[in-house]
Amino acid sequence: MKSHREELWFEVRQRRQLINITPDVERALAKSGIREGLCLVNAMHISASVFINDDERGLHADFERWLEKLAPEEPHAQYAHNVGEDNADAHLKRTIMGREVVVAVTAGRLDFGPWEQIFYGEFDGLRRKRVLVKIIGE
Amino acid sequence: MKSHREELWFEVRQRRQLINITPDVERALAKSGIREGLCLVNAMHISASVFINDDERGLHADFERWLEKLAPEEPHAQYAHNVGEDNADAHLKRTIMGREVVVAVTAGRLDFGPWEQIFYGEFDGLRRKRVLVKIIGE
Amino acid sequence: MKSHREELWFEVRQRRQLINITPDVERALAKSGIREGLCLVNAMHISASVFINDDERGLHADFERWLEKLAPEEPHAQYAHNVGEDNADAHLKRTIMGREVVVAVTAGRLDFGPWEQIFYGEFDGLRRKRVLVKIIGE
Repeated sequence: MKSHREELWFEVRQRRQLINITPDVERALAKSGIREGLCLVNAMHISASVFINDDERGLHADFERWLEKLAPEEPHAQYAHNVGEDNADAHLKRTIMGREVVVAVTAGRLDFGPWEQIFYGEFDGLRRKRVLVKIIGE
Repeated sequence: MKSHREELWFEVRQRRQLINITPDVERALAKSGIREGLCLVNAMHISASVFINDDERGLHADFERWLEKLAPEEPHAQYAHNVGEDNADAHLKRTIMGREVVVAVTAGRLDFGPWEQIFYGEFDGLRRKRVLVKIIGE
Repeated sequence: MKSHREELWFEVRQRRQLINITPDVERALAKSGIREGLCLVNAMHISASVFINDDERGLHADFERWLEKLAPEEPHAQYAHNVGEDNADAHLKRTIMGREVVVAVTAGRLDFGPWEQIFYGEFDGLRRKRVLVKIIGE
């Protein structure tokens, strides 16, 4: 069994942003030399997300509006976590969007349907944060 | 390490439906010959879901009503994604229900608790769509 | 390829509670002898969750209040599932929080960011329930 580990680093210049990281994960897979296996991609921070969906600008605007409805940022004082913090909403938003994805690796490629793309979802940016890529297989 | 890959195809005759696919995944596992490992089951489409819950008709009615409350289909124009599309709500519903499950394989069986069943959640049907089963192990 | 399987048992003395199970998963990993691989941790019951977030008491109070807003327990009769049952809300809450996590194993350790901790989320307690830990790798 082979394994490969890589970190992707981000410093998002606003509080919230969705970033397509599919090319980064594809590069990690190519480096790994793994042809058949599983590829885990997870946020290493608990106020960020890794998820799979469509790379469509309108949908991303819908996600922003929808997450703000389900887990609004303000008023900050509505959350017990926000004592010396203001990011409770980011923990909730990431819970809805998910921490991680597991993608099949087949014949050396991410085994995707036609529109699947991997995103990093930042919900508390303006600091350096990381995503982990771990691939196992043969 | 062994690996096995299989696609399950669906053409749901209504917009939304939950389908128990546990027997299909069990058949894929039997074909794989894998006794110990991990089994990934994921929707290959971004407006559908694979999740684990109870096969109980009342609960499924509750899911339908609850998802419509959290991410209503109509009015279609409330979503920026719905320009030449009408399925933004399906992307949101699938986000809540999840893209994938990873199930342990132990002694050649899906290693399940007493009520765990795998479902395909269709949120934008009336077209052919796929689920991927990828099993790795020995 | 090596594999290791272990069950963690819980009997929570109230309906809902979040329990940090990171030390239990670390012990299972140490027993496994696995250095590189993937570690699956999943609830074996469909009204409970395994998720990763921060071990912070204020945040946990926020989760309780937020889940009650998105999927309120009462009135029990609002749910079609609650015929001879009263736990439909627990199925919905677990759906938001997630059934499982997959964690990378690197150099014999759970490969975590600085604040990542694994929690068991009980949403229908007062009975014995289980979590599965399955680790594969080398």
